[in-house]
Amino acid sequence: SPQRPGRGGSAAARHYSTSALVCTGGPGAAAEEEVRRLCQGFMAPPVSGPQELWRRRRDMRGRMELLIMETQAEVCRALAALDRGAAFAVNTWERKEGGGGISCVLQDGHIFEKAGVNVSVVFGNLSAEAVQQMKSRKTLKDKDGKLPFCAMGVSSVIHPKNPHVPTVHFNYRYFEIEEADGTKQWWFGGGTDLTPTYLNKEDAVHFHKTLKEACDKHDPKLYPKYKKWCDDYFYIKHRGERRGIGGIFFDDLDSPSKEEVFQFVQSCAKAIVPCYIPIVKKHCHDPFTPEEKLWQQLRRGRYVEFNLVYDRGTKFGLATPGSRIESILMSLPLTARWEYMHTPPENSREAEILEVLRNPKDWVH
Amino acid sequence: SPQRPGRGGSAAARHYSTSALVCTGGPGAAAEEEVRRLCQGFMAPPVSGPQELWRRRRDMRGRMELLIMETQAEVCRALAALDRGAAFAVNTWERKEGGGGISCVLQDGHIFEKAGVNVSVVFGNLSAEAVQQMKSRKTLKDKDGKLPFCAMGVSSVIHPKNPHVPTVHFNYRYFEIEEADGTKQWWFGGGTDLTPTYLNKEDAVHFHKTLKEACDKHDPKLYPKYKKWCDDYFYIKHRGERRGIGGIFFDDLDSPSKEEVFQFVQSCAKAIVPCYIPIVKKHCHDPFTPEEKLWQQLRRGRYVEFNLVYDRGTKFGLATPGSRIESILMSLPLTARWEYMHTPPENSREAEILEVLRNPKDWVH
Repeated sequence: SPQRPGRGGSAAARHYSTSALVCTGGPGAAAEEEVRRLCQGFMAPPVSGPQELWRRRRDMRGRMELLIMETQAEVCRALAALDRGAAFAVNTWERKEGGGGISCVLQDGHIFEKAGVNVSVVFGNLSAEAVQQMKSRKTLKDKDGKLPFCAMGVSSVIHPKNPHVPTVHFNYRYFEIEEADGTKQWWFGGGTDLTPTYLNKEDAVHFHKTLKEACDKHDPKLYPKYKKWCDDYFYIKHRGERRGIGGIFFDDLDSPSKEEVFQFVQSCAKAIVPCYIPIVKKHCHDPFTPEEKLWQQLRRGRYVEFNLVYDRGTKFGLATPGSRIESILMSLPLTARWEYMHTPPENSREAEILEVLRNPKDWVH
Repeated sequence: SPQRPGRGGSAAARHYSTSALVCTGGPGAAAEEEVRRLCQGFMAPPVSGPQELWRRRRDMRGRMELLIMETQAEVCRALAALDRGAAFAVNTWERKEGGGGISCVLQDGHIFEKAGVNVSVVFGNLSAEAVQQMKSRKTLKDKDGKLPFCAMGVSSVIHPKNPHVPTVHFNYRYFEIEEADGTKQWWFGGGTDLTPTYLNKEDAVHFHKTLKEACDKHDPKLYPKYKKWCDDYFYIKHRGERRGIGGIFFDDLDSPSKEEVFQFVQSCAKAIVPCYIPIVKKHCHDPFTPEEKLWQQLRRGRYVEFNLVYDRGTKFGLATPGSRIESILMSLPLTARWEYMHTPPENSREAEILEVLRNPKDWVH
């Protein structure tokens, strides 16, 4: 994948919101100017370019690209501000087969060991097999073995240094596939989940409650369903443990309507900063012992195990020719550790988090 | 998997060789006494027990179990002697479905960061699918869906602390499967390969030459074939690099005859100490910089990537119910590191090893 040097907008750049634009869809030159100004607040020029984005401003592809770009900028700004203004390395990349992405990585900061926020917007033709890997519940009719597709998303893993600050992961994505008869299949996927080294019940409740509130605005059935999906998905089978204390996770979402699902995904994306940043602020100056740092490193080892052995996105990425490996494996922690037969003592704080990873709890009632 | 505390023989125990016994197969009480004495030199009592081993002393199952036990003891003794007499933690484990194993692990020693030498001897009934995963080139006739099998092997990964001492891995294994009509399928597999952090050509030549000599005793065609197989097998596809500088690797070996293949495997097993230990002795007191240690940690990250994403044995183990996870993941290093977009400078020693990992070399002509 060819790389150009980052042409990133500064994290302190003025911040415009896409929401007004997207809802009103204001026509003409004024709106075009608005898209241009929005783009100035992004970490780098959007993959589709401001002009194309303006043309697509009423299509889901345009609206979603604006949302993921805005989410990337919002999260990077929040992290950089916390980390004494540390700078993100911004890399834009192009995909030969169509599309590209923007990777923002803060490595070895004051607070964050490794924080990556990636956007990718890729399109082209998918083989039928690849489509089946992406979506198993529907059969798709290809045309001469070709299925035009577009996949876009924002995805992030944030590993802090202090073992009392949890790792967070989120990913929001949108797919479109055009069948032989011209009909378009589309769906959304996503989720936000927390991986603490030590259990802090107050933080767990805050995190889940913030996500629940975002879900409840749309349908009270969503949070319980996606909370369970998250616990089931982030399961390290060979260890009998989850990766963390969960959050929400969903895939193949295409009802009740494209508009309603987008609104829901937008609410989830807007909940990232409020569900996570207060936890970082609260604990980033907590004192910690070398033993606590060591336990964090062992938990990081489990994070690596989940991502390399089970995570569908990682496996799909590693197996896809032309994918950008550095962006996919950005999710791995800076450092990790594996000790033979490490077992925390009974009633320790290490045993406390293990118990929750083995038997997920309901944090919000 | 239930665990009993280690009842390990001391690494300094008197060393008997199985070779004489196996070749002469001396009958009667004398031989039984000989097996008992052999067992005293092992790291723990063999899975099959001395009596059973004596009964099977002319069968391949008995001979191979003696060979893998002897290899385990020989390697552990050599490593412990180098590491100022550091002690191996010896754990024996039983498999509910049949068989068990002995794990010997030296962690955080003077020279070795993590050194594990495992023996396992497992038997029972395999599902036809599991058999196919193990051996794709033959069809096996099951009886009511059952295929009695026996699998045994010795496997080891040795990660030293000093970045100038390479990591070594070896594995020698034997399978037997009984088909519905009573005929037995059998095959051997194995290999020894080296993963240096920095390239030392003299060491690379010594390592490959020692393996080549072991192979050449049996057939001059073996080394070139198994050297290439090793380069092909330990390939980290998403990085376009091999895990290390190779060695030998083979699988499904069942010709020219059971006896000849066993003799070959025995030669390979006997070559482990002479191909590796002199390299450790030569470099274990080499001075190193923090930068060199960091590069080692990054290479350890690649080791983790290969083992969790590609290694068939690891994947098979993680997916097999009842397998002992701690013994399987013992292969992972104590510590590893992933940096975003790390690229060594041109003409550096880091770039030198990368070049060899990307384009494997012939070390012996």
